[in-house]
Amino acid sequence: MFDTIIIGTGPAGISAALTLKQLNKNFLWIGSKNLSYKINSAEKIRNYPGLSNISGNEMKNIFLKQINDMGIEILDGQVTGVYDLSTHLAVLCNNEQYEAKTIILAMGVEAIKPISGEVELLGQGVSYCATCDGFLYKNKDITVVSSSKGFEHEAKYLASLANKVNYIGLYKDINMDLDNVNIIKGMPQKIEKEDKKMKLTFKDQVIESDGIFMLKEAISPSVLVPGLETKDGHILVDREMKTNINGVFAAGDSTGRPYQYAKAVGEGNVAAHSVVNYLNNLK
Amino acid sequence: MFDTIIIGTGPAGISAALTLKQLNKNFLWIGSKNLSYKINSAEKIRNYPGLSNISGNEMKNIFLKQINDMGIEILDGQVTGVYDLSTHLAVLCNNEQYEAKTIILAMGVEAIKPISGEVELLGQGVSYCATCDGFLYKNKDITVVSSSKGFEHEAKYLASLANKVNYIGLYKDINMDLDNVNIIKGMPQKIEKEDKKMKLTFKDQVIESDGIFMLKEAISPSVLVPGLETKDGHILVDREMKTNINGVFAAGDSTGRPYQYAKAVGEGNVAAHSVVNYLNNLK
Repeated sequence: MFDTIIIGTGPAGISAALTLKQLNKNFLWIGSKNLSYKINSAEKIRNYPGLSNISGNEMKNIFLKQINDMGIEILDGQVTGVYDLSTHLAVLCNNEQYEAKTIILAMGVEAIKPISGEVELLGQGVSYCATCDGFLYKNKDITVVSSSKGFEHEAKYLASLANKVNYIGLYKDINMDLDNVNIIKGMPQKIEKEDKKMKLTFKDQVIESDGIFMLKEAISPSVLVPGLETKDGHILVDREMKTNINGVFAAGDSTGRPYQYAKAVGEGNVAAHSVVNYLNNLK
Repeated sequence: MFDTIIIGTGPAGISAALTLKQLNKNFLWIGSKNLSYKINSAEKIRNYPGLSNISGNEMKNIFLKQINDMGIEILDGQVTGVYDLSTHLAVLCNNEQYEAKTIILAMGVEAIKPISGEVELLGQGVSYCATCDGFLYKNKDITVVSSSKGFEHEAKYLASLANKVNYIGLYKDINMDLDNVNIIKGMPQKIEKEDKKMKLTFKDQVIESDGIFMLKEAISPSVLVPGLETKDGHILVDREMKTNINGVFAAGDSTGRPYQYAKAVGEGNVAAHSVVNYLNNLK
């Protein structure tokens, strides 16, 4: 059992990981080995103390070097659920279950609100995780709604399995030039299920397929963690970054504005220290 | 009138200043042109995201360069009072008064608790500010209690005015080798006033002089800001870094543990954004 599992590899998760490593805690860190697509695509950051007038890509490389230098590893994966087992906590990731005494939620904020039907049909034709559920759709038709370019490799993986992929990219410069991929423009409005078929409705058309993958940087926290208190899509925390669930802490954009590197880094640090205090009180 | 006055040049103040500069706010920043004696003397910092395995002195130089590059200036001074004038706020510094719509308190945490009589006799023989009150003691005998090596230059200034200086340095490697300076060892316990003479009591002796200077990195926040709510020496703030006084925000070590660079930087950023929201609501 881990002391803690950190979910998210943006600035809040990085700060928590560096501090927990320094404090010799036994933790699992889940996210992307490439850290954060959002950092990587930031043009210029001017107000982060210590890194003057830096591009997001340079910042990402500095963070990656620091993480490597401290010997910290990242598990590349998509968390699909966090469960309170009362004596401890469980995290579902890539169809594996990991257990821990505490959890730090640092998965960022959802850029796009869930559409009608999305949360209700999760696990019943709607999936957030290509790696987890892709195999269910071998030689079938699927629809992929992707919030950023960073998910194109996952969509390509799905295309390698599926018969046909309808691809809706909610960003610029889509590069999904594959024979069985059909690029669709527009903003999806709702998801419905009818006779085992999934229907995705746009303003002017309806796309039918066997399954819908919603690929996004961050999943709505209340969907990811049943029972978690949120307000306007943000996790409610106190000054120690405690949530309403015992042993679950949160940090970074997921807890609210300002969406800033410095704020995220500060909260990751505080969450790590609160985890350590919590573990000490367990003894 | 300034939009805001930032008090303190440690990581929280630096973060607030960088963000307010980027947001084009008209602010005054009071502290030390050398930033923070505490940063400068830190041995190695490992868990600050972006600056890997760095000494305090290197970190200080990186911060100074970033501040200079952005064209931000620091007013070298010791704040001796912050007052709520109901329509706006006033800050007393080096015997000058500065006015602002908001204030960010980022003056760090007091390493040493006030001793008995210190706060009660402030302005009546006890002073926190060599630059402000030194001239009152020309050719007189004074006692200086200094919490860190960083104050030796102020103590030397006092020695250049006074007849005689009793110097109590609460740190290692005291270097105050001047003819009229008498180094005294031990921990002061209380201050009393009797027949216009100030008496500083130690376990085994009593030192008498005309005035006592308590030189420390941070003044107790409730002494500095009358009416400010504190708990165990820390300023009470909410998640937006608001204090109980309208327009007064706080950030960094002054608001509580963990005493960490990342936490301070995060809170300075949040305080700056809260100031901007507050100013927008004034319009």
